[in-house]
Amino acid sequence: MKQVLTDLQLRDLRHVWHPCSQMKDYEAFPPIVIKKGQGVWLYDEHDQRYLDAVSSWWVNLFGHANPRISKALSEQAFTLEHTIFANFTHEPAIQLAEKLTALAPQGLHKVFFADNGSSAIEVALKMSFQYHMQTGKPAKKRFLALTDAYHGETIGALSIGGVGLYNEVYQPLLLDTVRAKGPDCFRCPFQEDPASCNAPCSQFVEEQLQAHHEEITAVIIEPLIQAAAGMKMYPPVYLQRLRALCSHYDVHFIADEIAVGFGRTGTLFACQQADIMPDFMCLSKGLTGGYLPLSVVLTTEQIYDAFYDDYGTMKAFLHSHSYSGNTLACRVALEVLTMFQEEQVMEMIQHKGQYMRALAMEAFCDMPYVGEYRQVGLVGAIELVKDRRTKEAFASEERIGYQIYQRALTKGLLIRPLGNVLYFMPPYIISEEEMSFMIHTTKETIEQFFQDRGAKVG
Amino acid sequence: MKQVLTDLQLRDLRHVWHPCSQMKDYEAFPPIVIKKGQGVWLYDEHDQRYLDAVSSWWVNLFGHANPRISKALSEQAFTLEHTIFANFTHEPAIQLAEKLTALAPQGLHKVFFADNGSSAIEVALKMSFQYHMQTGKPAKKRFLALTDAYHGETIGALSIGGVGLYNEVYQPLLLDTVRAKGPDCFRCPFQEDPASCNAPCSQFVEEQLQAHHEEITAVIIEPLIQAAAGMKMYPPVYLQRLRALCSHYDVHFIADEIAVGFGRTGTLFACQQADIMPDFMCLSKGLTGGYLPLSVVLTTEQIYDAFYDDYGTMKAFLHSHSYSGNTLACRVALEVLTMFQEEQVMEMIQHKGQYMRALAMEAFCDMPYVGEYRQVGLVGAIELVKDRRTKEAFASEERIGYQIYQRALTKGLLIRPLGNVLYFMPPYIISEEEMSFMIHTTKETIEQFFQDRGAKVG
Repeated sequence: MKQVLTDLQLRDLRHVWHPCSQMKDYEAFPPIVIKKGQGVWLYDEHDQRYLDAVSSWWVNLFGHANPRISKALSEQAFTLEHTIFANFTHEPAIQLAEKLTALAPQGLHKVFFADNGSSAIEVALKMSFQYHMQTGKPAKKRFLALTDAYHGETIGALSIGGVGLYNEVYQPLLLDTVRAKGPDCFRCPFQEDPASCNAPCSQFVEEQLQAHHEEITAVIIEPLIQAAAGMKMYPPVYLQRLRALCSHYDVHFIADEIAVGFGRTGTLFACQQADIMPDFMCLSKGLTGGYLPLSVVLTTEQIYDAFYDDYGTMKAFLHSHSYSGNTLACRVALEVLTMFQEEQVMEMIQHKGQYMRALAMEAFCDMPYVGEYRQVGLVGAIELVKDRRTKEAFASEERIGYQIYQRALTKGLLIRPLGNVLYFMPPYIISEEEMSFMIHTTKETIEQFFQDRGAKVG
Repeated sequence: MKQVLTDLQLRDLRHVWHPCSQMKDYEAFPPIVIKKGQGVWLYDEHDQRYLDAVSSWWVNLFGHANPRISKALSEQAFTLEHTIFANFTHEPAIQLAEKLTALAPQGLHKVFFADNGSSAIEVALKMSFQYHMQTGKPAKKRFLALTDAYHGETIGALSIGGVGLYNEVYQPLLLDTVRAKGPDCFRCPFQEDPASCNAPCSQFVEEQLQAHHEEITAVIIEPLIQAAAGMKMYPPVYLQRLRALCSHYDVHFIADEIAVGFGRTGTLFACQQADIMPDFMCLSKGLTGGYLPLSVVLTTEQIYDAFYDDYGTMKAFLHSHSYSGNTLACRVALEVLTMFQEEQVMEMIQHKGQYMRALAMEAFCDMPYVGEYRQVGLVGAIELVKDRRTKEAFASEERIGYQIYQRALTKGLLIRPLGNVLYFMPPYIISEEEMSFMIHTTKETIEQFFQDRGAKVG
């Protein structure tokens, strides 16, 4: 079905190649032109509004066009927008580094800046590898990652990813990653209850470490939620097991908190629920409250020290990006962290998380095609299944999630599908009324979709 | 020599790991804390000012804290800071894509957004590879790049780089790149004059293409200036030769215009001096006038079409970054391009380039250790040599350029060294008086350095 497009839509499609999109899909489902944002709402060119229940790819924390953040950004722009960050520095970066190291798991004292999540991952991979090269372990050249992992799109980051949708076609270009089966609580092969289990599934990582630890430099993991995999959630004990294994086998532990950091899981950082310290922690997305690309890698004095030497030893970490330590983005991130402190954000997340869970459990738990509603912090996910008893999945070609996503948009709700999983990851400033709209519109959309589908199939 | 550090310097060194730095160097040479910027000047915490003759790593075009750009950024921040860019769009991105495709070499109609230069390079590499996979040439899995090339720091980008300083240590992680000797006009092996030669040195690329074209997907090159290599400049005819070779051997031509785009070489894009159209053009740095990380890859309809198909064929290009198409950065970039049109920027670059060249030729050409002063557009470079006749280089351990850089800073001038090369890449708004300060302070610093060195050696 061809649509009547607005002038801006036509102009968009003439030149813009959108990310993570089959552009042919846009023939039937043209891009929505957003003119302004306010709170959880995005407004299109017809003044139709959409509740941004995915925080615009998991980045927004305090609402769109937040006046406090915008003011800080604006002031900075008229003072100092950016300066080279080699041999130069500025107060927003210094203060941001201080705040991050104070708030992160103890022991992560050093902050390296990059621009986006993928770049942060590449920094961590390179640092881990070079650390081992420079400390007498040059055999350590491989990374261990989980099935269904997602760590970004540049070739290093893509190499450790485990979602074939993103990296299958690029196999000839990718690093030879050691892959271990990750946790799968919804379809637990040990039939354990994640609330009480001892993470027997960590044995898959252990087996790989046992076999390959001499050539493995780091294990990388998304703490508590494998997000792109379909918001697969698992308990903190798994992280504790992995931390112990990494220490035992002399392998770094890289925590990719790009999606889960900054309060998303109910603690400021997900690792804190397991009370562990990774060797590297990668942060981005919420770092700037959804405003600007910025990422950081936090690491330890011990790692830093292995690069600290006379110039002639050539041990320096020479990674850089033009905009490393960008002043504008640092100033915004600083404001975001100040808001966490001044506005009791963690309490707000607790409270709203409980409210969302109660609403969602009531709405979804008895629905015919809902295999599970799961939630950690302010991340909720509905896993749709063909059969609740067997947990049989819908075939991916059916694009069930995608169709429901499209329908929800016509009702003013922006949720996103990950295969058969629909999820909520709203800005923290969402009100109870808005949560109610989000949950009930989703329920209604799912119901209508399956009714219409049943009518068609029948 | 230990220095007395300010509170901010101490705090910086406690937590910040700077890019492209041996942090131990900071003991003798602590980070300079910048508080504000205005025009070409950066002001530190003691109100000492530095002329930013490198445009803060080649990004700034219209001066620091430029009121016009800051106003556009501020207005955008209070309207819409960012929105998810899959299935959604916004006017700043649409207008930016229109302007870019109108200004770029004809035929580059499609614009894909990313966040930084490295990511743009990875996008181009992945697109080129996937294009060939999807058009029946799966054997094309390697990239051809030049000696001394620099294309960024993520693992894909680093793989095609040819500067050992940045990638030597990571060899076990890198792709197997086909390497061809690049142009070297200062020490031309053919003893040609670049003003009149026919680029016989393109034969090195030709030899590699002849031998490996069936497995090569793309040739990547920095048009006119190999920047990180030491501002190595070469004539447009070389690009024409390469373009012809790529077409002949059915290999993509990727133009990395990240450093040279947006007027730096005297034309809006460097490829335009050779009147060629690359298959991919990567842009970043000056794209936002030095404000924010943003990058784009421009490509052709033909490439786009190879990804355009029904979803089920799995031909889509699924690359994304959280902040792909960031509204704030697009708005800034749009303002920058509007300024190019409204403020006769290209004429200004022509005029200032001539002025800078005249000043520099007079200042440097008879100096004992200056092997060459070379310039293209508003990029000038001084190559220091031990012996002008033989062009023998100083040993890199001597860090000649680095020492002169440090001394120039004490005189309020920020130039940067690339080995034995010192370069100027000032913001376009630099005045004649400021250019004079830049050139004469550099001359004076070089003279004093070699005098002191002579006195020590003698």
